[in-house]
Amino acid sequence: MPYVNIKVTKEGGPDNSGPTSAQKAELIAGVTELLSQVLNKNPSTTFVVVDEVSLDDWGIGGMPVMDYRKMLTEQADEAVKQ
Amino acid sequence: MPYVNIKVTKEGGPDNSGPTSAQKAELIAGVTELLSQVLNKNPSTTFVVVDEVSLDDWGIGGMPVMDYRKMLTEQADEAVKQ
Amino acid sequence: MPYVNIKVTKEGGPDNSGPTSAQKAELIAGVTELLSQVLNKNPSTTFVVVDEVSLDDWGIGGMPVMDYRKMLTEQADEAVKQ
Amino acid sequence: MPYVNIKVTKEGGPDNSGPTSAQKAELIAGVTELLSQVLNKNPSTTFVVVDEVSLDDWGIGGMPVMDYRKMLTEQADEAVKQ
Amino acid sequence: MPYVNIKVTKEGGPDNSGPTSAQKAELIAGVTELLSQVLNKNPSTTFVVVDEVSLDDWGIGGMPVMDYRKMLTEQADEAVKQ
Amino acid sequence: MPYVNIKVTKEGGPDNSGPTSAQKAELIAGVTELLSQVLNKNPSTTFVVVDEVSLDDWGIGGMPVMDYRKMLTEQADEAVKQ
Repeated sequence: MPYVNIKVTKEGGPDNSGPTSAQKAELIAGVTELLSQVLNKNPSTTFVVVDEVSLDDWGIGGMPVMDYRKMLTEQADEAVKQ
Repeated sequence: MPYVNIKVTKEGGPDNSGPTSAQKAELIAGVTELLSQVLNKNPSTTFVVVDEVSLDDWGIGGMPVMDYRKMLTEQADEAVKQ
Repeated sequence: MPYVNIKVTKEGGPDNSGPTSAQKAELIAGVTELLSQVLNKNPSTTFVVVDEVSLDDWGIGGMPVMDYRKMLTEQADEAVKQ
Repeated sequence: MPYVNIKVTKEGGPDNSGPTSAQKAELIAGVTELLSQVLNKNPSTTFVVVDEVSLDDWGIGGMPVMDYRKMLTEQADEAVKQ
Repeated sequence: MPYVNIKVTKEGGPDNSGPTSAQKAELIAGVTELLSQVLNKNPSTTFVVVDEVSLDDWGIGGMPVMDYRKMLTEQADEAVKQ
Repeated sequence: MPYVNIKVTKEGGPDNSGPTSAQKAELIAGVTELLSQVLNKNPSTTFVVVDEVSLDDWGIGGMPVMDYRKMLTEQADEAVKQ
């Protein structure tokens, strides 16, 4: 009787506006299969909810994710120069 | 001091685009009343958050909910024929 | 196909250790009935998960809930004296 | 390795359509700093997800938040008249 | 940068007290691999949190899950007799 | 009217069994203050719920967090030797 919530940033997919319906269907199929195999859970009572979270609304390293990635890239660039 | 989160698929309502504001107000009133009656919780510190989840983002039976309903309908149609 | 999560503080019940199983069953029945009446949701695909949260772990007014209640009581006592 | 979810009503900000990106960045920075100071948590494995919730979808006191605020205002107005 | 929350009932495992640590490790590995394959997500920023929910606290069909299963079994038994 | 959920691993504190009540009170005070300063939110309608998650139940990098930390330590040890 599992309930699974998958939160991902809203990006990627053909126009970078987030996962496609087909990709989300793959996630739903994959995690339901996993719960069936590992814990013998019945797919017909397995719920999966996917949330796409705007990049502005996701923080890591104390800053929005886009700023964090930019910082990591700049640090890598610096390291290469030295 | 309860916190209640209600997740429903974004469908139904007058134009099938999800519950109306009036329906959501009924859910809020009903669940707050329930917590007051059963556990004597104070409505003024009862929060209710309703989330409408896109049909693409909700999985059951290892597939998106629309595919699952279609499969059940087809199975029922088959059963009737036999 | 709703999913409902109800969080309450772990208190009340016969020995103040939290809601009884019977009270939780009442919450489950009540909210499932509500979703059936208001949005015509099928009970057999309505999940309800109840979480009991330790009093230490619940904050309101910028402090743990027990401290907050004590503060309100003291303020009320002060008001009566004046 | 903390995960923080902050839910706020979708209001405020320059055109009252919700917090700005800069305000959300402040929340992300502030709560990450807090977890680092109080529990020595590493910012690079601290996730923060901000959810803006439509006013229709947030209930308190058994009604949508806008109705609740209106009720409190009316009660205050009544009290002043007496 | 995904965050995955998996809620399962606290049952199964060697003494029926819930999934073993090894089974939970399999869930963590499997869902992280899935997000890497389908959406190219980096495992080092993929969080998975497993919650085991007491059977009393999980409702389906308007009743606690143990009552629901018992009801389904009784209905099946009745059907066989007829 | 914010709702904040803070999930941390159950470790640290005086006997490594998780944050103390005083540390959790600091988190509650800090995040409530933050929401008041940044978004002018009223503390008396700000809820904070802290969840302590067992180390077995938290995954990162495709494995339970203890295994992940051990792997990072071993990699660092290897790097030093070379």
